[in-house]
Amino acid sequence: MEKVRGTNRKTGKLFLIPTTLGETEALNKVLPGYNLQVIHSLDVFIVEQLRTARRFLKKAKHPRPIDEMQFFELNKFTDIQSVSAFLLPARDGQSVGLLSEAGTPCIADPGAAIVSLAHKNGIQVVPLVGPNSILLALMASGFNGQQFCFHGYLPVETTQLNRRIREIEANSRKLDQSQIFIETPYRNKKLFDSLLRNCKPQTQLCVATDLSLASEKIATATVDAWKKKTPDFHKKPTVFLLYSV
Amino acid sequence: MEKVRGTNRKTGKLFLIPTTLGETEALNKVLPGYNLQVIHSLDVFIVEQLRTARRFLKKAKHPRPIDEMQFFELNKFTDIQSVSAFLLPARDGQSVGLLSEAGTPCIADPGAAIVSLAHKNGIQVVPLVGPNSILLALMASGFNGQQFCFHGYLPVETTQLNRRIREIEANSRKLDQSQIFIETPYRNKKLFDSLLRNCKPQTQLCVATDLSLASEKIATATVDAWKKKTPDFHKKPTVFLLYSV
Repeated sequence: MEKVRGTNRKTGKLFLIPTTLGETEALNKVLPGYNLQVIHSLDVFIVEQLRTARRFLKKAKHPRPIDEMQFFELNKFTDIQSVSAFLLPARDGQSVGLLSEAGTPCIADPGAAIVSLAHKNGIQVVPLVGPNSILLALMASGFNGQQFCFHGYLPVETTQLNRRIREIEANSRKLDQSQIFIETPYRNKKLFDSLLRNCKPQTQLCVATDLSLASEKIATATVDAWKKKTPDFHKKPTVFLLYSV
Repeated sequence: MEKVRGTNRKTGKLFLIPTTLGETEALNKVLPGYNLQVIHSLDVFIVEQLRTARRFLKKAKHPRPIDEMQFFELNKFTDIQSVSAFLLPARDGQSVGLLSEAGTPCIADPGAAIVSLAHKNGIQVVPLVGPNSILLALMASGFNGQQFCFHGYLPVETTQLNRRIREIEANSRKLDQSQIFIETPYRNKKLFDSLLRNCKPQTQLCVATDLSLASEKIATATVDAWKKKTPDFHKKPTVFLLYSV
């Protein structure tokens, strides 16, 4: 007997789809081949910016014309009330892809609200493997990977920033924890100088720039040693890691 | 003029090479094609267990006979004094691969000591992309990915465990931080029960099991809702995440 449409249809899934960390890189440098199979199977995407998402899907050789696909934009301009509609296709049996603008969705990146909503609606969430600058930096730092803390952005205001750095350094020592944070690229030098001024000479600092790109640079040294050189990180995406024992 | 061997030779690199999180999975599900190119170019590997490393290299279709490759074992039985010899091939111009037993090297996994040594010897460290259960779990939890803390294993002793759980829950709320931890698989139920007993009813708990495997299960719910069901995580590798607002 033919199944009645709508009653026996399975719920779609929400796939969390990473992208490259820089536009110039080949997809197979950082994305498993399986990701492309998943991407090609989807027609509905939640994206941060339409323009870059379309460019990525073209690069990923999505077999369907871009104009026939459905896109929902999720960024700071999105009305939070409208977000629940983004998952209606999944409730209707069609899987949805949450596409990152750079790196992995939901980590130092929007998207967590959609994932939370998926859980509330019983929609299966499937995270795919891809490049994450925090993780790559921690792997390559040589610091403790058994215990670590990611703080996102530190305060911009100088007095607050100095206090926060000293607090983070004390926590690293007290809890034997690697401390990870990021900065808006044009402020990298200011953060770096504050780290050198506030941390103990023997505290270790890792500066990881342009991760997974051809221009990648990762260097670990003590604060004392860093005082004699400046990393080449001007306006480049950089992850900072601190470890004090 | 012919260059004199040894004087103009470039230093080799230390590649950090992830593997699958379970042996049955296809490599292209979680590893970028580029990783295989790198693996095929290497003849020297630092591994946790010779047996599983050889099996992985065979699966990765390394073109050279296993017996002609060089392996160094790095695990709890390794004499720390002998470790510096592991990087001699790199100082001699030959790149070395640090191979994880499961997932990404150096994150909740040994290897950081080797990476630290590489930095001290001016050897370039290159982290490759691969599956990491902590990151996949955080992406899929729906929790805050802007600030998070990984604690590794919590204490085994019950009184200490209870205290630590309450401390972690308080920190999550105070610092708006996702809290992540793991447990030896056969103790999952004990940890889960302690979480239900110690956390507030509205605290959110994500249980992520068998990440990236065909049997993957990820569920997020409040502590209150979890009291009515038990996850299927018996003896399965599981990441626990807690988020309290």
